[in-house]
Amino acid sequence: VFGTLVDWRTGVSRDAKSILRPRGYAIDWRAFADAWRDEYQPGMEEVRAGRAPYMKLDVLHRRMLQKILPRFGLEKVDAAALDQLTHAWHRLDAWKDVATGLAKLRQRYLIAPVSNGNVALMSDLARRNDFHWDAILGADLARDYKPKAAVYLAAVDAFNLQPGQCMMCAAHSGDLKAAADSGLRTAFIARPEEHPGVSETAPTVAVDIVARSTEQLAAKLSV
Amino acid sequence: VFGTLVDWRTGVSRDAKSILRPRGYAIDWRAFADAWRDEYQPGMEEVRAGRAPYMKLDVLHRRMLQKILPRFGLEKVDAAALDQLTHAWHRLDAWKDVATGLAKLRQRYLIAPVSNGNVALMSDLARRNDFHWDAILGADLARDYKPKAAVYLAAVDAFNLQPGQCMMCAAHSGDLKAAADSGLRTAFIARPEEHPGVSETAPTVAVDIVARSTEQLAAKLSV
Repeated sequence: VFGTLVDWRTGVSRDAKSILRPRGYAIDWRAFADAWRDEYQPGMEEVRAGRAPYMKLDVLHRRMLQKILPRFGLEKVDAAALDQLTHAWHRLDAWKDVATGLAKLRQRYLIAPVSNGNVALMSDLARRNDFHWDAILGADLARDYKPKAAVYLAAVDAFNLQPGQCMMCAAHSGDLKAAADSGLRTAFIARPEEHPGVSETAPTVAVDIVARSTEQLAAKLSV
Repeated sequence: VFGTLVDWRTGVSRDAKSILRPRGYAIDWRAFADAWRDEYQPGMEEVRAGRAPYMKLDVLHRRMLQKILPRFGLEKVDAAALDQLTHAWHRLDAWKDVATGLAKLRQRYLIAPVSNGNVALMSDLARRNDFHWDAILGADLARDYKPKAAVYLAAVDAFNLQPGQCMMCAAHSGDLKAAADSGLRTAFIARPEEHPGVSETAPTVAVDIVARSTEQLAAKLSV
């Protein structure tokens, strides 16, 4: 979902600016969003490695935020503003093809996010962007984080399907590699705009389908 | 969901008849549906009491079915037919107010089933009957069965809410009692047609709202 369907970098930097600038802060908002996101994998790794019990991504996001505050001179921002800022991840906008692309895919397939984002986060993004999921699967259901196999397999099982009947769709090769290792089919959706110059423009692993958008994915699946 | 939103008794007896009559069986189809449903609480109790690990309702439904076969002389029905029959619970029709009533409620509220039915069951019923859930909560998420408090509280937490910000809506006082005990608000939706002469026509516990349909519930909540 993050990067593949919604533009977290623009959304988080936009909300950081609108929340923190009135409080007198002027920082590099994009760098702030990037720094926050950079804590994503280390944050989840605590849970994946069993050093911390499962906690939802909203909680991890708040902890990750706390960690980067000193780097941006934000140590004195009040807790209410930090809570509001953490909620920025619930207010991300989708790439322009997504609402229509998912609606097309849904004509033939069950569709569900298999994201590390928690249910509240996923349902808020769906509301904001007009996604109609058949269910919200992913981390909260598995109580663990991708790329651990248990998350993909819990999603497959929730729909009473076999791995080979499911397709993981993402803009990130690591996610697709892990899904394929559990027997799922895979589609790479290129999102060079996620982080220009940094994001993958093509998959680095074998995938079943490569598409430039959810609309093109639907077309390639003949929906 | 079962009884409150969808008519399990008509649906299960209809599918039992359409699957078993061509195989030469002629039984009391309503009595068969009732006998199957009567195994519901004892089946879940194994999990609730910790005597069995969590298993989804589809699996319990299949075991419950196996148990009642001799009573109806159905011991020789083949496994494929029994699997098809178990899937009858995925093909239930909603009471006529539900699709529009839920759509109205969704204009103001997050809506989700907090059912003992598993995700695949809930998503199939949603597809068939045009429900647009914000998420599918309930047994699969909590990995336990109502009326245990953990199931209601896992649903509340999934939406990042407090119990008092949520309303459990059901046609069954026991369900509402358990939800209220965990701090949720409650609405009783009368469904005397679920099982005429047997179903509750009014709540036997204190509730916040009594309604005759989801449409009337929406009206009482001023949606």
